[in-house]
Amino acid sequence: MQGMIHEECGVFGIWQETDSDLARLVYHGLTALQHRGQEAAGIAVNSDRIIRYHKGLGLVHEVFDDAELDKLGKGNIAVGHVRYSTSGSNSVMNSQPMVVKHVKGQLALCHNGNLTNSYELRRSLELSGCIFQTTSDTEVISYLITRNRLTTPSIEAAVGRTMDELKGAYSLVMTSPAKLIGCRDPYGLRPLCMGKTDEGAYVLASESCALDAVGAVLIRELEPGEIVIIDKDGVRSIKDHCAKKPHSLCVFEYIYFARPDSVIEGVSVHEARRRAGAFLAEEHPCDADMVMGVPDSGIDAAMGYAEATGIPYGMGLVKNKYIGRTFIAPDQDSRNKLVRLKLNTIDSAIKGKRIVLIDDSIVRGTTSARIVKLIRQAGAKEVHMRISAPPFLFPCYYGTDVDSKNSLIANGHSIEDIAKMIDVDSLGFLSVENALRLAGDNAEVCAACFNGDYPAGAPQVAEKERFE
Amino acid sequence: MQGMIHEECGVFGIWQETDSDLARLVYHGLTALQHRGQEAAGIAVNSDRIIRYHKGLGLVHEVFDDAELDKLGKGNIAVGHVRYSTSGSNSVMNSQPMVVKHVKGQLALCHNGNLTNSYELRRSLELSGCIFQTTSDTEVISYLITRNRLTTPSIEAAVGRTMDELKGAYSLVMTSPAKLIGCRDPYGLRPLCMGKTDEGAYVLASESCALDAVGAVLIRELEPGEIVIIDKDGVRSIKDHCAKKPHSLCVFEYIYFARPDSVIEGVSVHEARRRAGAFLAEEHPCDADMVMGVPDSGIDAAMGYAEATGIPYGMGLVKNKYIGRTFIAPDQDSRNKLVRLKLNTIDSAIKGKRIVLIDDSIVRGTTSARIVKLIRQAGAKEVHMRISAPPFLFPCYYGTDVDSKNSLIANGHSIEDIAKMIDVDSLGFLSVENALRLAGDNAEVCAACFNGDYPAGAPQVAEKERFE
Amino acid sequence: MQGMIHEECGVFGIWQETDSDLARLVYHGLTALQHRGQEAAGIAVNSDRIIRYHKGLGLVHEVFDDAELDKLGKGNIAVGHVRYSTSGSNSVMNSQPMVVKHVKGQLALCHNGNLTNSYELRRSLELSGCIFQTTSDTEVISYLITRNRLTTPSIEAAVGRTMDELKGAYSLVMTSPAKLIGCRDPYGLRPLCMGKTDEGAYVLASESCALDAVGAVLIRELEPGEIVIIDKDGVRSIKDHCAKKPHSLCVFEYIYFARPDSVIEGVSVHEARRRAGAFLAEEHPCDADMVMGVPDSGIDAAMGYAEATGIPYGMGLVKNKYIGRTFIAPDQDSRNKLVRLKLNTIDSAIKGKRIVLIDDSIVRGTTSARIVKLIRQAGAKEVHMRISAPPFLFPCYYGTDVDSKNSLIANGHSIEDIAKMIDVDSLGFLSVENALRLAGDNAEVCAACFNGDYPAGAPQVAEKERFE
Amino acid sequence: MQGMIHEECGVFGIWQETDSDLARLVYHGLTALQHRGQEAAGIAVNSDRIIRYHKGLGLVHEVFDDAELDKLGKGNIAVGHVRYSTSGSNSVMNSQPMVVKHVKGQLALCHNGNLTNSYELRRSLELSGCIFQTTSDTEVISYLITRNRLTTPSIEAAVGRTMDELKGAYSLVMTSPAKLIGCRDPYGLRPLCMGKTDEGAYVLASESCALDAVGAVLIRELEPGEIVIIDKDGVRSIKDHCAKKPHSLCVFEYIYFARPDSVIEGVSVHEARRRAGAFLAEEHPCDADMVMGVPDSGIDAAMGYAEATGIPYGMGLVKNKYIGRTFIAPDQDSRNKLVRLKLNTIDSAIKGKRIVLIDDSIVRGTTSARIVKLIRQAGAKEVHMRISAPPFLFPCYYGTDVDSKNSLIANGHSIEDIAKMIDVDSLGFLSVENALRLAGDNAEVCAACFNGDYPAGAPQVAEKERFE
Repeated sequence: MQGMIHEECGVFGIWQETDSDLARLVYHGLTALQHRGQEAAGIAVNSDRIIRYHKGLGLVHEVFDDAELDKLGKGNIAVGHVRYSTSGSNSVMNSQPMVVKHVKGQLALCHNGNLTNSYELRRSLELSGCIFQTTSDTEVISYLITRNRLTTPSIEAAVGRTMDELKGAYSLVMTSPAKLIGCRDPYGLRPLCMGKTDEGAYVLASESCALDAVGAVLIRELEPGEIVIIDKDGVRSIKDHCAKKPHSLCVFEYIYFARPDSVIEGVSVHEARRRAGAFLAEEHPCDADMVMGVPDSGIDAAMGYAEATGIPYGMGLVKNKYIGRTFIAPDQDSRNKLVRLKLNTIDSAIKGKRIVLIDDSIVRGTTSARIVKLIRQAGAKEVHMRISAPPFLFPCYYGTDVDSKNSLIANGHSIEDIAKMIDVDSLGFLSVENALRLAGDNAEVCAACFNGDYPAGAPQVAEKERFE
Repeated sequence: MQGMIHEECGVFGIWQETDSDLARLVYHGLTALQHRGQEAAGIAVNSDRIIRYHKGLGLVHEVFDDAELDKLGKGNIAVGHVRYSTSGSNSVMNSQPMVVKHVKGQLALCHNGNLTNSYELRRSLELSGCIFQTTSDTEVISYLITRNRLTTPSIEAAVGRTMDELKGAYSLVMTSPAKLIGCRDPYGLRPLCMGKTDEGAYVLASESCALDAVGAVLIRELEPGEIVIIDKDGVRSIKDHCAKKPHSLCVFEYIYFARPDSVIEGVSVHEARRRAGAFLAEEHPCDADMVMGVPDSGIDAAMGYAEATGIPYGMGLVKNKYIGRTFIAPDQDSRNKLVRLKLNTIDSAIKGKRIVLIDDSIVRGTTSARIVKLIRQAGAKEVHMRISAPPFLFPCYYGTDVDSKNSLIANGHSIEDIAKMIDVDSLGFLSVENALRLAGDNAEVCAACFNGDYPAGAPQVAEKERFE
Repeated sequence: MQGMIHEECGVFGIWQETDSDLARLVYHGLTALQHRGQEAAGIAVNSDRIIRYHKGLGLVHEVFDDAELDKLGKGNIAVGHVRYSTSGSNSVMNSQPMVVKHVKGQLALCHNGNLTNSYELRRSLELSGCIFQTTSDTEVISYLITRNRLTTPSIEAAVGRTMDELKGAYSLVMTSPAKLIGCRDPYGLRPLCMGKTDEGAYVLASESCALDAVGAVLIRELEPGEIVIIDKDGVRSIKDHCAKKPHSLCVFEYIYFARPDSVIEGVSVHEARRRAGAFLAEEHPCDADMVMGVPDSGIDAAMGYAEATGIPYGMGLVKNKYIGRTFIAPDQDSRNKLVRLKLNTIDSAIKGKRIVLIDDSIVRGTTSARIVKLIRQAGAKEVHMRISAPPFLFPCYYGTDVDSKNSLIANGHSIEDIAKMIDVDSLGFLSVENALRLAGDNAEVCAACFNGDYPAGAPQVAEKERFE
Repeated sequence: MQGMIHEECGVFGIWQETDSDLARLVYHGLTALQHRGQEAAGIAVNSDRIIRYHKGLGLVHEVFDDAELDKLGKGNIAVGHVRYSTSGSNSVMNSQPMVVKHVKGQLALCHNGNLTNSYELRRSLELSGCIFQTTSDTEVISYLITRNRLTTPSIEAAVGRTMDELKGAYSLVMTSPAKLIGCRDPYGLRPLCMGKTDEGAYVLASESCALDAVGAVLIRELEPGEIVIIDKDGVRSIKDHCAKKPHSLCVFEYIYFARPDSVIEGVSVHEARRRAGAFLAEEHPCDADMVMGVPDSGIDAAMGYAEATGIPYGMGLVKNKYIGRTFIAPDQDSRNKLVRLKLNTIDSAIKGKRIVLIDDSIVRGTTSARIVKLIRQAGAKEVHMRISAPPFLFPCYYGTDVDSKNSLIANGHSIEDIAKMIDVDSLGFLSVENALRLAGDNAEVCAACFNGDYPAGAPQVAEKERFE
């Protein structure tokens, strides 16, 4: 898959006993989570109840340099965020952490996910006199937490009460004046884990690879609906405020979003992808000479497919890692010549072979068709495509941008049609049944984009129409 | 005076019948108001109830280029702001216009001034569930207007009710979904005027020089306490909602802040400064060979003093206009050699003469002492200093940053002491009595920084201690 | 005059006994010379025969920050340059100092002026195997000096021999491995002076204001044709290598280029400009109520005119100092409304008066016409224009960009015609005779742009046609 | 290998019949060659004998945007360059193409390689009056070609004569006023190939992947010592001017420098790397459970090793592709915690296994030791390291920066010592004998860095000492 589907955020938080240079640790943690969002980054550092922050558009290393990190100063709690945002002139305003001042002091909040009732919540808040400076759910959540704080004895109680009002997907990491707090929605749609360093600092992060990056060891995932509070009294957990819900981690974390070196809910992402390849081998076997993956996201599944079938694994495509984000288009005439800029074939590896090509999705089909054409030009005798996920049939309301428009090809066409459109000799998608088993036979996951089964419900109206 | 006292803002707004490239007109209007604030700039354009905006740190021409102006698009209402802000990592957040979404749509608000009860207002708003993302008064005013809008029939009614709650100095320019609105506080502490172009566009601006810049003709000042509403039904005015208060325009607008080509309350700023020079001549005459001003702000008063006394006016100091804002300091040893970087003398004009030197203030005295030394080195026989304002004795709470700490020299020392400290042969300040007459014998002005008479009251606690 | 005529460079050099932070001194010296060129800046520092340098496009404070100055390190000789350059994609290559490595070590060269035989010199050098990476005269001079060095016993001898080959205008400042060297062309067309600091550092600079800026005291101008060598053995001078030529300093240095606080050839620039005003008063008296100058360059002459005639001097025009270099144009319709952006009138000072308006040149007439219109709109009863220079009739070949195309208005029209075109009641230019007396009755100056008398000859073919 | 050894350049040139937007084609070609140099980039476009160019520091997409490409305009010949340069304040000057004006017009020259006699050539040129503005060999070559042009009938004859004077490694691409010319040194140390597009444009490039990127098909490599001239008369070749030399392509192109999808001298780089893995399997077999490569450069050889031994190939290390070039270091205390930022392990893939780890070099050993430690922490039972190249024992004088200082570990220590230092259970390097066979049994390659056999000689003195 060539960058068509996007996770919307990565969150990170750290607490330790005494003030130190936490900004740099958050910087490194966010760099490890950069694949979850490349459009904006931000860090907030809490030093004795005073929160300093900086955020901006771009990659973590573009937004922060040594001078900016120095300005954030030392602290004993810090949070950070990377964001994939829709474009817009004011998107800095929408970047996170959102830092607000309320009656009890400051709050810096980071959010990964998407609410399904944010329209209703905003409307209700506006009617009670709230004003919104951004279009993000994070501002809605900030209002709710701080308002609930007025009538609850603690910030964690306010978070708990807020969770009763929120619908949809969210993993939150925040710093109140004295506490680092994390929570997951009752369905656990977005991941959030906790780790600890040798020195006793506690870390919250979207993925375990960010714990590794700062030298922390994974303790455990937060449970669905759980609130974790970390302060000088240690780590406490609140779980009983949400009714027990079926665990529903987004299966696409395993298929595409997460880094292969992360472990989510006890399952290695790399292994889950190899398992996808093995399932595919079982469902859609093939008589072929070489299995290859579309880099980078098809590689693991290709290895699993090769291992399961005994067909040799090989490398036939090379990705240019220096393509800038603002791609400069050649003049119209030569554009069709320039397909090999981002991806090129290793002809000697492909020539004369029957190829099994593994990718993790087909969104609109155009990219797949272009890759297949390259492989045929390189001399492949046959091209058999295998997709390590089921076809997208339903929009995602929980924080990814797979929406109904993009899922066109699978919605309007049969597998056979698609195979013809992208010119492959055979085509196979992973079954929904096996997708549900990627994280283990008893795993509970959300696969709404494949099966339309929305554990946390769907919004009553399309949000983008209302807000933007 | 060498940049020690700062006005905090300039505001600008424009309405016309149909959509056009208003962003560029605001750009030019703000450039004309740039002297009122050089730290941040912003423009918001309203096209059929959708408000787009851009703001950033720096001069107007640094924040905006053609691409940014194009992105703002066309519209029929637009507002803009230039700001002098205290430094801080998050000062983009504090820049204006503040654009918020509330239950009735969007609002873009620009503010010049300073509230004296903002601590109380923020506290009260927080207790009713408001959260603050900035430390500016503008956010407080935004909350009040939008909350009052919930219970009033119109935006102008909400502005009126809000004015009953605000204490201190403010001139506001804002765009609601369908209206351009401007208002001044009941004392008229900060200026705000209205003009009209040949094509029928209405313009609101802090000073008339910004009307000139966009080809508009000055109609009149807004009256203290007045609200002006401009929309497709024309211009309406609301005046009766505020109890009648003594008019109290900040006298320092005439002495230093405003551009000499502006006309405020019917009085030319240039003429007011010449008058200051003439008053000085009367109060503190002098037997001398040449009158000269410290550029740029002492020039006009120097001409008035020369004219009144008959002593020839001359030019003895030249300012380097290319000094960057981030001044690079030479190494310690040679620093005392480098006094002539910003200001240099024309020795031939000074040599052997008895000089009357006019400046508009003495804040800490160090700058004045340095200038006097330069003039003596150039061969002046005598140096007589005349200040076109009274000594600062009281802090300003109405939107300038003359605070008690900086007024040290006048507070702790007699005129004779100061004269010795800055090494002049004689020293004279404008009397408070004449300062009150700068804009005409019957003008009503605020001169609180000189006489401690605060027309709109003083804050109950020092704000900076609480918020920053 | 509104920025139509440009000086092409400012040069600066410093030598002292031991290594120190000379880069910052050059930085400040160049800032004082910034009015001579705003397009590029560069500094080279020589530390024990190793020359480090940095140059770039923009103002001195844009090209250099503390980090760049630190990188240049300490040294005991340093040179710097500010440049007004014609635009072009490769203009960084053309910026100075030009630093070259030759058989005797490194040379960093700064040049102010323009050669009249550079085409012939380049052609000849190319035929002997030279290659050119820039289009600047500086590269030509670098080749000549280093080639002459091969057959002469010292760098100063090589400079002397090179001066025999160069035709036209040049003031050079350079550092060889061990010496700071400065020289002026045999006619002294471009200025160059020498000063000394209390600590014993010697300074060379285009104007004395740059000496002031670094705490040096003016010793004297370099004489036409003189070479000055400064090294550990002190200051030496070579004068006998050039045949005696009439001294011909560019008179426009007095009229426009130089800073008013500079003293050139013993004459204060400010005083020369006042004298221009006095001459004008004598040649073109006027019955009027107020004399005013077009800021900034007409101010001094206006004061001289006022003093000589007894007509009061006044201020009627204010310049906006915040206009960015990249002016953003309004849309076509409103452009004619926007004349008051850069220059605005003080109406109260002008209204009902007969005005004498002083400027230092009329190039194409459009700017003058626009200013006159403003003054009439402000209510002037009459406008009498006086120009503190004669009409431009001839191109300059010596380093300014007054060329034949721009001098159109004076070439093709009578004074009466021009007066009608710019809509003034009367118009008077300074006579060439008096222009020649600006620096004193016996001053020897070049006034070729006014009288066509080229002391150093003219090029045989127009250069721009050949090189660009 | 973690970025310790650097190729110094990539070159690209294109000719076609008529003017078109060649700048964008060069842009894309250079992007495909970006792995050969990331420090600077430049493009020169020749339109009817006028050459426009732009160059700067950074990646191709950082140096060029649409506006810069537009400024270059259309042309029928264009050349470009990417450079790995040593740091230095003036490195823009050293970037390429070098564009010079000489007696026959303009020349834009791009160079990949390193001369061994540049000191002697520079000295000799200086003695005949040349000056050097850069420290690059390219300026030396420019002088020689243009000087030889004075006495030869054509540019190609001048290039031929210049090749007789140059010693060392070079592949050149240049545009004269009317011709695109490419040549390789007589030993063919650096690669250079030629391709053609469907439309009849000819392309020269360091690697075939750049031909693919612009839609050209590989025709052939240039032969060692060959000059190719492309103009309106077609393609001509000059080969007879250099005495026949043994072909000596740098073997490190196969091992590390080139992209795996390139084909050099008829051999796929990917296949050569797999062959290295197969040779290693033969020379240093191992009893293990999984073969894995250090990304990215050890991957291909790992696949070859796995295939040859039958040990399963696996993925145990993940590289973070978002690490910025300016790495922000954590504070001292936590640095040792942060080894997993750039490279992290997939523990589930490694745990309990005996691992064969393939990398392409060990330079100083510190990086290898760190990676081995990670793999042990991930639970590997044994770690057996295999290096797909022989140990570096000799400096490279032909355009890479493997110098004697960096080769410390292999020079001073036995294989056993190194194995202990990096804590592996066994360690094996590829034999020199097999390294020579990577491109085929009869391939002729330079392996001087491994065997000290310098086909084109060594410099008489270390250059860096002399010039920098």
